[in-house]
Amino acid sequence: MHVNELDTPALVVDLDILETNLREMAAYCAGHGLSLRPHIKTHKIPAIAQMQVTSGAHGITVAKLGEAEVMARAGIKDILIAYPIVGTAKLARLTALAGMIRVTAATDSLEVAREIGRAAKAAGVTIRLLAEYDAGLRRCGVQSPEGLATLATEMSRLPGIEFAGLLFFPGHIRVPPSEQQPILQVIDARLRTAQDKLFRWGIELKTVSGGSTPTAYQSHLMKTVTEIRPGTYVFNDLNTVSGGAAEISRCALTVHVTVVSTAVEGRAVIDGGSKTFSSDRLRGGEAPGFGYCVDLPGLVLETMSEEHGHLNIEAAGRPLRIGERLRFIPNHVCTALNLHNEVWGARKGEVVERWDIQARGLVK
Amino acid sequence: MHVNELDTPALVVDLDILETNLREMAAYCAGHGLSLRPHIKTHKIPAIAQMQVTSGAHGITVAKLGEAEVMARAGIKDILIAYPIVGTAKLARLTALAGMIRVTAATDSLEVAREIGRAAKAAGVTIRLLAEYDAGLRRCGVQSPEGLATLATEMSRLPGIEFAGLLFFPGHIRVPPSEQQPILQVIDARLRTAQDKLFRWGIELKTVSGGSTPTAYQSHLMKTVTEIRPGTYVFNDLNTVSGGAAEISRCALTVHVTVVSTAVEGRAVIDGGSKTFSSDRLRGGEAPGFGYCVDLPGLVLETMSEEHGHLNIEAAGRPLRIGERLRFIPNHVCTALNLHNEVWGARKGEVVERWDIQARGLVK
Repeated sequence: MHVNELDTPALVVDLDILETNLREMAAYCAGHGLSLRPHIKTHKIPAIAQMQVTSGAHGITVAKLGEAEVMARAGIKDILIAYPIVGTAKLARLTALAGMIRVTAATDSLEVAREIGRAAKAAGVTIRLLAEYDAGLRRCGVQSPEGLATLATEMSRLPGIEFAGLLFFPGHIRVPPSEQQPILQVIDARLRTAQDKLFRWGIELKTVSGGSTPTAYQSHLMKTVTEIRPGTYVFNDLNTVSGGAAEISRCALTVHVTVVSTAVEGRAVIDGGSKTFSSDRLRGGEAPGFGYCVDLPGLVLETMSEEHGHLNIEAAGRPLRIGERLRFIPNHVCTALNLHNEVWGARKGEVVERWDIQARGLVK
Repeated sequence: MHVNELDTPALVVDLDILETNLREMAAYCAGHGLSLRPHIKTHKIPAIAQMQVTSGAHGITVAKLGEAEVMARAGIKDILIAYPIVGTAKLARLTALAGMIRVTAATDSLEVAREIGRAAKAAGVTIRLLAEYDAGLRRCGVQSPEGLATLATEMSRLPGIEFAGLLFFPGHIRVPPSEQQPILQVIDARLRTAQDKLFRWGIELKTVSGGSTPTAYQSHLMKTVTEIRPGTYVFNDLNTVSGGAAEISRCALTVHVTVVSTAVEGRAVIDGGSKTFSSDRLRGGEAPGFGYCVDLPGLVLETMSEEHGHLNIEAAGRPLRIGERLRFIPNHVCTALNLHNEVWGARKGEVVERWDIQARGLVK
């Protein structure tokens, strides 16, 4: 079946581009002695996680326990839950998972670490744990290298815990890769301070886990870093492109839609809105539009209702007709895909694959 | 089980408030001789659609065929698909549905109407059809009363079609109910112009379908209107409240979350972000924040990552602690609920119901 025979809205992944993206990131990591532990929040599909492992990833990263459970059931053996696990129900699930596969968790508080250790000890398992450092995003993470070293030391003494190292998320870095070096070096120096302190106290760091797609290919500039966790690189999106971290030609996922109304002059309506694309603006929030139209780059997906995309067609150069199909690269592929139940895989326009998005909606 | 025992993030509906909202809208419609055809895009749950029908709705409205199919399977017998049905695959599903229940569609183009009629005739069914008028949103809809009357006339002559009347969506009206009268009267006058023309041409309007939650309780001001299609009123949300169409005490759905990090001064992180609340800003887009915290109204859910909600706690009056539970009314309940797989129903804090969100993610 040709992709144009798929009813719309449909998410279509170009498998050739996907494989190139996977291969290139794996080669970069191998070339710089970095472990690759991709974050599956972008695709939430076990088959793609398996492709990542096959092409060189040492394990995967997830945010939520539900994602970890789906991936473990699908055969992934080494999972980092880069998220604080809080509460009795989740601790029970965490220790059950640790009885089956290698599980690493992360937190910025001794309180959470203690609860994880207590639950692990009671369940007769050991949980690997990373201490989270705030690299500047002001989201989670210990604020100073000294505080980080102290937390790490206390973690390393907890029963039920195997202290595994440090984790940070450089999500505040919104400059092109060519301008990232000075920022990454500051973070690196601060991680080094914590590392040196811990070394003096006799605590070894097996892992320093960083990276995300925008900074991934600059990770070698940080000498402390042993592992990176890019997510979006599998598909890329308009955020990745506008941040200078990928070309449009490396965007593997497009949203296929159909024009359903042309009644309003200067506009056309497509059959996907905020429940198809998500309402995420481009990073930074200033740029207009909710996606890039591959077929008619002048088109602006200007506003959205839940199921209607409102196109401004003035710069498209021609009128649109009802029934016409268009392909869009979404602003943020992770939240767009999260709205859907299925993704199609294609090669050279032919549909060859269909995946359920098994780990979507697993917010717990 | 008490609602505080539900693991988070969890969507919880206060069933007493839900029932009050349903009852009040049904009473308003009954009192003014209006048919009530609620839009189920807000809840996407067959059991709630059934509650709406039981409490006085004459049928329901959906946007997508997939939603109609779920609702028809659950026993709803009268469904308006307020969306242009375009393309062979969808036409086949539409006519199959029309073989089972009473189906009405809507479009602003003769082209779409013709295709629907052709498919209906070939399948041996009749599709009720409404002609859509643009009341000012500039999304779908014929632009002038004259054009509307012409389209309606042409529709009424199509084989396979039972011309049923007019449809409009007053989604551009963003003033409080007390200030809506002049705007609604202008729309009413324009609909009357089309209606008069059609009457002279011998075409009767069985239905003039309008309304949505922000304008629902002013619908009696429009003498042409016979039916309204409010959706959000079942739960209400911060958009409804900020638009003056409901009180906070009438918001039936809250998102229950847990604080998972307090490492950054002046902030706290909850276990729900844009994949739990959606990125929808308040209507108008200027107001900050992504929800209203019922427990600590001073809290601002300032920014979100996919799975992290970043709270500014400076106006909360006290620090937050890890493990603390908070309840938020989301900006836009329709898109928030659409991210989840389940909703809990509670009365006076006790969980008494659990619903699968059966029609979520059905974008086609």
